Amino acid sequence: MSKEKQFVKEITPQSEDFSRWYIDVIKKADLMSYAPVRGCIVFKPDSYEIWENIQKEMDSRFKETGHRNAYFPLFIPESFFQKEKEHVEGFNPELPWVTEAAGEKLEERLAVRPTSETMFGHMYAEWINSYRDLPLLINQWANVVRWEKRTQPFLRTSEFLWQEGHTAHEDEADARRETMQMLEIYRDFAENFLAMPVITGQKTPSEKFAGAVDTYSIEAMMKDGKAVQAGTSHYLGTNFAVAFDIKYLDRDNQHQFCHTTSWGTSTRLIGALIMVHGDDRGLVLPPKVAPTQVIMIPIGPPKTREPVVAKVNELYAELKKAGVRVKVDDREGQSPGWKFNEYEMRGVPIRVELGPRDLEAGQMVLVSRVSGEKKVIRQEDFVQEVQTMLEEIHTAMLEKARQFRDEHMTDVDTMDQFKAFLDEKRGFAYAGWCGSADCEAKVKEETGATSRNIPFQPAVTKTTCICCGQEAKHTVVFGRAY
Amino acid sequence: MSKEKQFVKEITPQSEDFSRWYIDVIKKADLMSYAPVRGCIVFKPDSYEIWENIQKEMDSRFKETGHRNAYFPLFIPESFFQKEKEHVEGFNPELPWVTEAAGEKLEERLAVRPTSETMFGHMYAEWINSYRDLPLLINQWANVVRWEKRTQPFLRTSEFLWQEGHTAHEDEADARRETMQMLEIYRDFAENFLAMPVITGQKTPSEKFAGAVDTYSIEAMMKDGKAVQAGTSHYLGTNFAVAFDIKYLDRDNQHQFCHTTSWGTSTRLIGALIMVHGDDRGLVLPPKVAPTQVIMIPIGPPKTREPVVAKVNELYAELKKAGVRVKVDDREGQSPGWKFNEYEMRGVPIRVELGPRDLEAGQMVLVSRVSGEKKVIRQEDFVQEVQTMLEEIHTAMLEKARQFRDEHMTDVDTMDQFKAFLDEKRGFAYAGWCGSADCEAKVKEETGATSRNIPFQPAVTKTTCICCGQEAKHTVVFGRAY
Repeated sequence: MSKEKQFVKEITPQSEDFSRWYIDVIKKADLMSYAPVRGCIVFKPDSYEIWENIQKEMDSRFKETGHRNAYFPLFIPESFFQKEKEHVEGFNPELPWVTEAAGEKLEERLAVRPTSETMFGHMYAEWINSYRDLPLLINQWANVVRWEKRTQPFLRTSEFLWQEGHTAHEDEADARRETMQMLEIYRDFAENFLAMPVITGQKTPSEKFAGAVDTYSIEAMMKDGKAVQAGTSHYLGTNFAVAFDIKYLDRDNQHQFCHTTSWGTSTRLIGALIMVHGDDRGLVLPPKVAPTQVIMIPIGPPKTREPVVAKVNELYAELKKAGVRVKVDDREGQSPGWKFNEYEMRGVPIRVELGPRDLEAGQMVLVSRVSGEKKVIRQEDFVQEVQTMLEEIHTAMLEKARQFRDEHMTDVDTMDQFKAFLDEKRGFAYAGWCGSADCEAKVKEETGATSRNIPFQPAVTKTTCICCGQEAKHTVVFGRAY
Repeated sequence: MSKEKQFVKEITPQSEDFSRWYIDVIKKADLMSYAPVRGCIVFKPDSYEIWENIQKEMDSRFKETGHRNAYFPLFIPESFFQKEKEHVEGFNPELPWVTEAAGEKLEERLAVRPTSETMFGHMYAEWINSYRDLPLLINQWANVVRWEKRTQPFLRTSEFLWQEGHTAHEDEADARRETMQMLEIYRDFAENFLAMPVITGQKTPSEKFAGAVDTYSIEAMMKDGKAVQAGTSHYLGTNFAVAFDIKYLDRDNQHQFCHTTSWGTSTRLIGALIMVHGDDRGLVLPPKVAPTQVIMIPIGPPKTREPVVAKVNELYAELKKAGVRVKVDDREGQSPGWKFNEYEMRGVPIRVELGPRDLEAGQMVLVSRVSGEKKVIRQEDFVQEVQTMLEEIHTAMLEKARQFRDEHMTDVDTMDQFKAFLDEKRGFAYAGWCGSADCEAKVKEETGATSRNIPFQPAVTKTTCICCGQEAKHTVVFGRAY
């Protein structure tokens, strides 16, 4: 068996054990290490750079829509959590507490923030006086901690990185418009930046954010058919405004409670894009988010090495100047074959090969990570061809993921149908739901699947409840989830 | 008294009470709010945007020198702090502890990181095997917490934002080269981005980082003559490598301990640049870091308003396209005079005025925040003139701050001389130091001044110790500090 084959062997095939495949890939691709703190990981440079690319793009979308960044404290006094009843019930079970500092017991325990509605609420009450102060549109990039039982790298870690937007508005209409605008930004970002198709819709009451009036989500399907909630946007009504006394003087000089929203996405996006796009050879990174978009590998025997490497470096400089994230691997200790596997495993979208015969012919070879397609091009077209191929790869990845998802979606009428589907095929199912929390709970109990959301645009409309058979109020997407 | 004058009155003059001036300015300019957590502040959008500009520039300098970003856990197990004796002694008095999470008492207390040498040390020991893995050059942008008794917005807060670089090297020479390289990046950044002159030098043993072999710093002088340590770079020797077992196989297949470094700057830079440049009218922001570099204000009576505003918007678009951070204030509810004061207070480097007569004459007026100088320019030269003036303002601010500092530096031979200088003039003094910690402590006790650093390029060389009169080993810069 050749070295290359042995190498590939080290990644468990997805079909054999998807969870092991995931851990194999993120370890081999050097994305993370387990930290010596329960449920925490270290985001190594290659995954952190994915996060930096996500941040940069998302941040510019937030700023374009009038939001500004700020930074609020990590610690939240215990009393703050008591102010909003649902909120404390939702988050209390997961909070870590600072009880001592600088050698003394604190008078009031401080929670390490799991989310910052309460802290923003407290400050907004101080800052907002008049309708002229509204809307107040602030986002924060921060770390948060939720001490959960089951953790999984990127997807669910005790500490994670995220952004949380918190806005205050004059009325329900404006707050709801904001809630939907941010959901749409998330959808567009997921699809057009991460090449990750998502289902947008509203969460059922039992799945909504603790303290929200309505929660909306984008839901993506992983290659094992399970769901990842990839972003949420909440209309909070006046719940936090009443709890924290966020009031303003309206145009008629009357005191009114603000209507607030919050919305967030996190480093779990990294886990999601790996599970949506990866294959048995390793990562497949969407071009727009890939730390390295193009890897250039000079090929051929030592005697032709010098001119080949010189040409590669010349072309490298051109591509870099055009703004493409490109690297050259001209190490002599590793064979081209080894390198091909290495960068396939790391998910680099395009590999460029250039050998002595290419040099003579004025050509070079581009290889697409997603299709494996090889394309011989003229050197003078290099920059243009790469840019075109990066676009094509993005489109192909989105299309491929969409196809996979659609093939793993069905609609079901009964619980037995749904169970059979989950056993045979895995994926999501549209099902009717009467609206009762009991029926929803029963689906979860019997199938392990939860309601992902009530999609805005269901492919089918179901008329009877999957559980009780009564008239359905909603068509819901159900699926097992991370 | 006109409204404008009343307005200015709200800022306490620096000469009357510098500390009150500082708090007045940062509150009026809307940079921060006190948070409902001891010693913490909220970084409001205008100060956070300064931090974003600092981050962007510094991050690109780190990346140019081969560093990559990563993210390490917030929590550090108590046992980690026990491994490096000086480190635990230095930081233990300031640590907040998480003792409970998710309703259960933790088996081992977790510190909220005050700095991450121990966590990086633990991970580096796992990651580094061979000389091929070295140097390992990683930076982290993160929040840290130090539960200190006296706090002051931006300069010393319980929680603050910073970057911490942690690197591992084969030998002392390479680690020392890195330590000096990062110090030089900090110096250059302070002077050429923040227009803040600094003194570079080595910390005395009693002032060095807990666990370092040698600490180097950049020290800036505030307008009250006090010092702010604006960045530090540490050569850690093998202290943390031994404590955490960071070893590598060298080229001769022998196990060796790595030599490590760490270096950091923080949001205290925001406080420093305010105290270095601000004046009695408010903030004076260095152009390169200012969130808004140019404010454009249309002027004149309502009847000429429309064409004036149209021209302002047209010129605004040109300037924005050229990459300048520019805003227009065409609100009708506020007078031009009110706006002039407002943006002077907020420290916007250039104000642009354009009225009906300017419109006719094809001209406009630029006003420099730092000198107050008015310049009438032709509209077609707008972009070029602004870019030139921004450069000039940067240079003028650096020069002005350097002049202030030099006027507030002296050299002293005796403690009495130093005390007299501190009482009369305030500032830094060069003084000889024998090298004894007792003498250093006595200077602090009697004058309230600490050794800032042993400058690489002292203006004078002192030969006798300021305290004991014995032969001086070093010429030290002493000053009271934040």
